[in-house]
Amino acid sequence: MKKNIAEVIGTFTLVFMSFSTITFMADQVGALGISLSFGLAVVAMAYGIGPISGAHLNPAVSIGAFMAGRMSMPEMIGYWVAQVVGGLAAAFVILAMSGDPAMAKNMIGPQGLAAALIFEVVATFLFVTVILGATQDGHATPVAGLAIGLTLTLIHIAGIAITGVSVNPARSIASNLFDGAALAQLWLFLVAPLAGGALAGILHKNGLTRA
Amino acid sequence: MKKNIAEVIGTFTLVFMSFSTITFMADQVGALGISLSFGLAVVAMAYGIGPISGAHLNPAVSIGAFMAGRMSMPEMIGYWVAQVVGGLAAAFVILAMSGDPAMAKNMIGPQGLAAALIFEVVATFLFVTVILGATQDGHATPVAGLAIGLTLTLIHIAGIAITGVSVNPARSIASNLFDGAALAQLWLFLVAPLAGGALAGILHKNGLTRA
Amino acid sequence: MKKNIAEVIGTFTLVFMSFSTITFMADQVGALGISLSFGLAVVAMAYGIGPISGAHLNPAVSIGAFMAGRMSMPEMIGYWVAQVVGGLAAAFVILAMSGDPAMAKNMIGPQGLAAALIFEVVATFLFVTVILGATQDGHATPVAGLAIGLTLTLIHIAGIAITGVSVNPARSIASNLFDGAALAQLWLFLVAPLAGGALAGILHKNGLTRA
Amino acid sequence: MKKNIAEVIGTFTLVFMSFSTITFMADQVGALGISLSFGLAVVAMAYGIGPISGAHLNPAVSIGAFMAGRMSMPEMIGYWVAQVVGGLAAAFVILAMSGDPAMAKNMIGPQGLAAALIFEVVATFLFVTVILGATQDGHATPVAGLAIGLTLTLIHIAGIAITGVSVNPARSIASNLFDGAALAQLWLFLVAPLAGGALAGILHKNGLTRA
Repeated sequence: MKKNIAEVIGTFTLVFMSFSTITFMADQVGALGISLSFGLAVVAMAYGIGPISGAHLNPAVSIGAFMAGRMSMPEMIGYWVAQVVGGLAAAFVILAMSGDPAMAKNMIGPQGLAAALIFEVVATFLFVTVILGATQDGHATPVAGLAIGLTLTLIHIAGIAITGVSVNPARSIASNLFDGAALAQLWLFLVAPLAGGALAGILHKNGLTRA
Repeated sequence: MKKNIAEVIGTFTLVFMSFSTITFMADQVGALGISLSFGLAVVAMAYGIGPISGAHLNPAVSIGAFMAGRMSMPEMIGYWVAQVVGGLAAAFVILAMSGDPAMAKNMIGPQGLAAALIFEVVATFLFVTVILGATQDGHATPVAGLAIGLTLTLIHIAGIAITGVSVNPARSIASNLFDGAALAQLWLFLVAPLAGGALAGILHKNGLTRA
Repeated sequence: MKKNIAEVIGTFTLVFMSFSTITFMADQVGALGISLSFGLAVVAMAYGIGPISGAHLNPAVSIGAFMAGRMSMPEMIGYWVAQVVGGLAAAFVILAMSGDPAMAKNMIGPQGLAAALIFEVVATFLFVTVILGATQDGHATPVAGLAIGLTLTLIHIAGIAITGVSVNPARSIASNLFDGAALAQLWLFLVAPLAGGALAGILHKNGLTRA
Repeated sequence: MKKNIAEVIGTFTLVFMSFSTITFMADQVGALGISLSFGLAVVAMAYGIGPISGAHLNPAVSIGAFMAGRMSMPEMIGYWVAQVVGGLAAAFVILAMSGDPAMAKNMIGPQGLAAALIFEVVATFLFVTVILGATQDGHATPVAGLAIGLTLTLIHIAGIAITGVSVNPARSIASNLFDGAALAQLWLFLVAPLAGGALAGILHKNGLTRA
């Protein structure tokens, strides 16, 4: 139960900080600031609540951990619920502060649907591969949380123009549920990240990306 | 006594560097530079004087440590005095260099008082939760100072538009004491950070955010 | 074989993320974002697949490791092939998304050929010196991957105006193969990085840059 | 002797990268990029040649280490010579590439001489305090090189408008020797950093800033 509370707090932090940046600070910090916001929230939580739950903060990370054999399906589902609850709670707070329901949404960019799908699957695959690789038995490092957070920053620097960057269904549910156009595209930001994360877990379990 | 001197030096550094950035460099480095300034000052002091005092640099951190049972009340009050002295000393130096008493002040932004209160309480709660979590027995890591500093950068990236970001009464005393309008709002930047920090300490002590 | 697959994945990630940034995000994140993109991709891979292959991602790094006596010539050639394959695969994906064959190319800048040669040789020499120094026996550190990635960011911050920054033949093959003018200059971005990397390996082996 | 060669290479790298950034990239990366350039060069060298010489790269650091009792006077003078030689060599290369002798110079800013003196003494004092604190016996950490480099970034973010930021006589000799107006102010960027560094060493030796 404490693990689930930690995931609620962690995903709340990720969504609260990054959505606050997008909503109130985008004109001051630009895409670089938004990218740092997502990544540094992961850094913060990796060290703040990582010792409790591992700080997944993201259903695509949890499905990767499940596929890699690191957690059971009931545990994964418990994490998923906690992540969605934490993300939605943060979205409600930001919504109350801004009054703008079209906040921080993930949308298909000018490159089109195929590019959006490719980017979300590939980026989530690489993200979860880094997470599983940096935390594997015998190669765990105190720097893992930093490297993982900076990988999320990297993915945002590379891809905000393509989809707004999800790689995280809990983050997309929190942003796309309150706006009609965004809700219509939510499926993509559930399916693609979960597929990429699951693939990373399978390849890791089979030893291809494991030392 | 050496611990208190370390807190004076540390809080001096935090306020001197960040207020210099806001006063002399804001047009060159923007909100991202200001956010890095606060965070990197914490990184510098975490490794520079952290071995002496723990580098709290912030009464909200010290009240969190007190509530978590990591320091006594007399120790906390000694830290508070040192932090306010260090912050004020830095403010006087910057003031002498710039001649502008309205420097770096924390003010309620266009989102209003409620948003300002929510942001300061939530952000300080999360900040102190990260600090206590990253330095808890059995999970201390050499990366803690870096993660804590980058968390402060994150909070600034997310919130400068809302309050200018305090999460630190010593920093707000140093900025808001010399300007009438800012002085009238100082109470908020004492109460909200201390409440958020104390809450983080209580939940940590009760085991909710402790591994 | 697993090492070679890891180099394919790693170099794919480096080229995919940085070329996506240059192609789709350059106007939003600028040269600083591009510099972070290259460096953070190295950080990601250093911790994600470093435990498998060492995460060279770059023929100039592998020739340095070979000259320093850390890998055999057949191993080096296997790494080279994997790096070129991974880089080209990423280029094809970005090309399919953007339709622009003149992407992310390395070209001699307004400072002229001599400046371009000097910068590429010197920067690659320093880059590989840092890599070999930070990973030498008895001085390996968990921070090495972070320091190495940030060194690549540094080199880009310093040199994008001079050559677009290669220091990596696999990256230049991936960018310069699809455009006539860029192809004509590709030789420079093969020769100079390999020379700089080899020199770093020789000096390291001879003890000059080894503790 | 190998230590001195390491200091030549290290200070060459610091000056080459940062002056290249200022000369060729300033309009693309701004003051934030310049600040990162100085800091990340220190990170690179801390891990690349730190195992050999400690990567001082700066006479003010060496005088601090001498005053703290960590090196002899002949060693310090050997480091000084190496640092000035390395810095000048890099300046000549950048000069050959740019043809502009007024590069990267340190000058008294619009805040005046007193502000310039205060900033350089205080900033160097804090910089060397961080270095000595983060590398002291019993508290050495693998993160020290990163924290020290980021402290130099912090100082630049805070002070470029005031003096261009020296805190390093070798860096100022390399920039101010080739331009009349800059040469006339060089004394300040020798005296103030050395005074700040020496003071940090004295206080550290006396235990005030030592755990």
